[in-house]
Amino acid sequence: MTWLVNCGALGIFDSGVGGLTVVRAVQELLPREAIIYLGDTARVPYGSKSPETIRRFSDEDVRYLLQHDVKAVVVACNTATAHALPMLEQKYRVPIIGVIEAGVEAVLADPNSQRVGIIATRGTIASHAYQHALAQRRTGLRIIAQATPLLVPLVEENWLNEEATKLVLQKYISPMLDKGIDTLLLACTHYPLLVPMLQEITAGAVRIVDSATTCAEHLRRELLRLDLLNEGEGDGILQIGLTDLSEQFEELAERFLRRLPPRITRVELG
Amino acid sequence: MTWLVNCGALGIFDSGVGGLTVVRAVQELLPREAIIYLGDTARVPYGSKSPETIRRFSDEDVRYLLQHDVKAVVVACNTATAHALPMLEQKYRVPIIGVIEAGVEAVLADPNSQRVGIIATRGTIASHAYQHALAQRRTGLRIIAQATPLLVPLVEENWLNEEATKLVLQKYISPMLDKGIDTLLLACTHYPLLVPMLQEITAGAVRIVDSATTCAEHLRRELLRLDLLNEGEGDGILQIGLTDLSEQFEELAERFLRRLPPRITRVELG
Repeated sequence: MTWLVNCGALGIFDSGVGGLTVVRAVQELLPREAIIYLGDTARVPYGSKSPETIRRFSDEDVRYLLQHDVKAVVVACNTATAHALPMLEQKYRVPIIGVIEAGVEAVLADPNSQRVGIIATRGTIASHAYQHALAQRRTGLRIIAQATPLLVPLVEENWLNEEATKLVLQKYISPMLDKGIDTLLLACTHYPLLVPMLQEITAGAVRIVDSATTCAEHLRRELLRLDLLNEGEGDGILQIGLTDLSEQFEELAERFLRRLPPRITRVELG
Repeated sequence: MTWLVNCGALGIFDSGVGGLTVVRAVQELLPREAIIYLGDTARVPYGSKSPETIRRFSDEDVRYLLQHDVKAVVVACNTATAHALPMLEQKYRVPIIGVIEAGVEAVLADPNSQRVGIIATRGTIASHAYQHALAQRRTGLRIIAQATPLLVPLVEENWLNEEATKLVLQKYISPMLDKGIDTLLLACTHYPLLVPMLQEITAGAVRIVDSATTCAEHLRRELLRLDLLNEGEGDGILQIGLTDLSEQFEELAERFLRRLPPRITRVELG
């Protein structure tokens, strides 16, 4: 396909359309930046697959974005960040920014955080990437990690106010509350849509940190540091490419982006 | 990889490991048959993806099986049957057997079936393949089709006795019961594991037809008709190849197969 922007855009990829929550946050914070978004919807989800497969898919995603001369790559997928970021950073010279660093920073920004709950896909939890990053930086931190694989399907079905969703969340979260968590880190780009229900379940007693918003802030700091912020005038263009197109993905894209997405194009990798 | 059996085996494929419910039924009915099973776990699920993508993936799956000289191919995936079977039948000379024909026959085996509920993935329902096949054969049949995308994740999480699962099923099934269905067709290879809970919810008032068992019976008739039944002695070998290997897939395989699976190998397509 022909992209309207090329050199100088931010490349953002995710296994599917969940990463558009990151795009939304980036557009709010950095409206000047042009964005090329790649969602690997033909092979979504990554969260249940093996580390080797996630690394191979992520590598193909980055190569696609680099073919379009992006100035930096954002890995808007927790599972891909957890398993592939070190490999990607080693392999490519362009700055590659994941979601984990940002989430960890946001958790530790509160010096009183002592017991941190993390919810994420099976792959992210199994990677121990968050647990490791947190434990390295604050001694004595208690970390309670819980894989919550049913949340992505429930969000994708838009069951955000259903009794069944509440039951599922309670089953996942209650044991964490019993262990006295003071912070809950949403380590999956789908989960911000569950914040209202999570606030209800945790009765406002827990600080909720979401990886989408924190990633945008982290990205701004990184772009500033690397002198890569767009200084131009006017708002940047967003272009979305998906490896599989379906009505459902387009509807989902609108929900994650909270507005009508621009024209979505099907792209091929490799 | 090296397969122990080659020429003369049955090739069975699915988007993931759900098709092992079909394998189980085939092994019970046709224990002499050697089986090469291919699960495309690297790209699972197919049920939420577009018809074009499902056809492309299914074609790659069949080509892989044909490279191993199978005598017939079973499409143990409802979504792949719904979108790809006609194309596959046209393209290849080997007999290709899907799950839909079998399910439709089983529904119509009861002459009193008047109102048939169908539950399946979004892709299967959207294809109208079952609705079309049923409507063609019995005039006046009332068909109530419902996409039930949350059931696969719940089955894969083994939440077979959870209150949340019951709530989800009730939300899907109650409107069908209100419409007076007398038959419920489980048009997804994952759903046989939900039969106990479905019987509870339907209070035994509805005939439940599952596509896994019926597919094995249909396959036997087809192999007989084509003179392809294995007349040899001893039980056939089962070999499982998956495009992605993970602990979770191996656990799931055991659950769908209801016994410890043979050694599972990672295979590459295309």
